[in-house]
Amino acid sequence: MSTRADPVLPADDAARALARSLWQGAKTAALAFTDPATGAPMIARVGFGLAADGTGLTLVSDLAQHTRALRAEPRAALLLGEPGPKGDPLNSPRLSVAVTARFAVPEDRATLRASWLARHPKAKLYVDFADFHFVRFDVTEAFLNGGFGRAYRIAAEDLHG
Amino acid sequence: MSTRADPVLPADDAARALARSLWQGAKTAALAFTDPATGAPMIARVGFGLAADGTGLTLVSDLAQHTRALRAEPRAALLLGEPGPKGDPLNSPRLSVAVTARFAVPEDRATLRASWLARHPKAKLYVDFADFHFVRFDVTEAFLNGGFGRAYRIAAEDLHG
Repeated sequence: MSTRADPVLPADDAARALARSLWQGAKTAALAFTDPATGAPMIARVGFGLAADGTGLTLVSDLAQHTRALRAEPRAALLLGEPGPKGDPLNSPRLSVAVTARFAVPEDRATLRASWLARHPKAKLYVDFADFHFVRFDVTEAFLNGGFGRAYRIAAEDLHG
Repeated sequence: MSTRADPVLPADDAARALARSLWQGAKTAALAFTDPATGAPMIARVGFGLAADGTGLTLVSDLAQHTRALRAEPRAALLLGEPGPKGDPLNSPRLSVAVTARFAVPEDRATLRASWLARHPKAKLYVDFADFHFVRFDVTEAFLNGGFGRAYRIAAEDLHG
C-alpha cells in the first residue's frame, strides 16, 4: 500500500525533447472525438503528419465517422507514440494532446498535400479523391507519459519549437 | 475524383474472427474519455486484458487523469490493435469500441487480479497499491477497420463469443 503525490511534473529539457520527437515523428495517431449522435467519446486511428509550420495534420475522408464528428465538435485529442515489440508497453513513451480540429481551406491544399506526401508517399493513391480533406490540429495542452512516475505537462510551443 | 457509398459493412465470419482476435489479444489500448473540467475528449494509453467471462478490463491508478474522468463520465472508447513495423499503418487492422466503464467491486478483486497477472505479469509490481483499481468495460458497439474499404460493424456478443 502506498500514498503518492500527483505525478504530473513540469517539463524539463529531456521531456520537451522526447515530446517533440513523438510529435515530429509520428505517422499515425489515435484520435479521440465526440460522437455527435450520443455525446459519448469515440476513437479511431488516423494518419498524422505536420504542416510546414509544425502544426499537426491529418487527412480524412467524408465517409469516416470521425470526419463528420469533427465538423460537429472540433475539440478532440491525439495519442502519439506506439509501444515497441519488447518490454512493458506502459513504460513506452507516448504523448496525449488536447487539440481543436480546423478543416483546411482550399488555398492551403497544394502546400499541405506536398507536406503530407513527403511523409506518407502511399497516400498518393487517394489524396486527390473528392471526399478527402486536410485537417489541422491546434494544440490546447499536452501530457508526455514517459513511463511509470514520469508524466510531464508540455506546452504547445514546446511541440512546435 | 470519386463518389463512394457508406463503407461500413455488416460483419461476416472473417471480420468477426479478426475483431475477436484483437479483443482477446490486446495488452494495451488507447482510451478516449471526456475531460470533466472542459467536456472535451481526452486520450491515454492504458493496459488491457479480459476478465474470465470475456469482459474487457483495465487496471488504473487514482493518480491518473482518466481514472478521475471515468468516475465522472463512464462512457468511453477503446482502440485496440497496433500497426506493425512494415506497410501502410492505415491498412493494419484495428478495433474501435464504444464502452461504459464500471469500477469493479472489492469482492471481484481477487479473481480479476489473477486474470490480469496472467496476461500482465510485470503488473505484480504495482497491482496491490491502494490507488489501483480494476475497471470493466461493457461494450455498446464496435467497428472493425481492416484497412481501406474494409470497415465492419461488430456486435458486442461477437467479441465475447
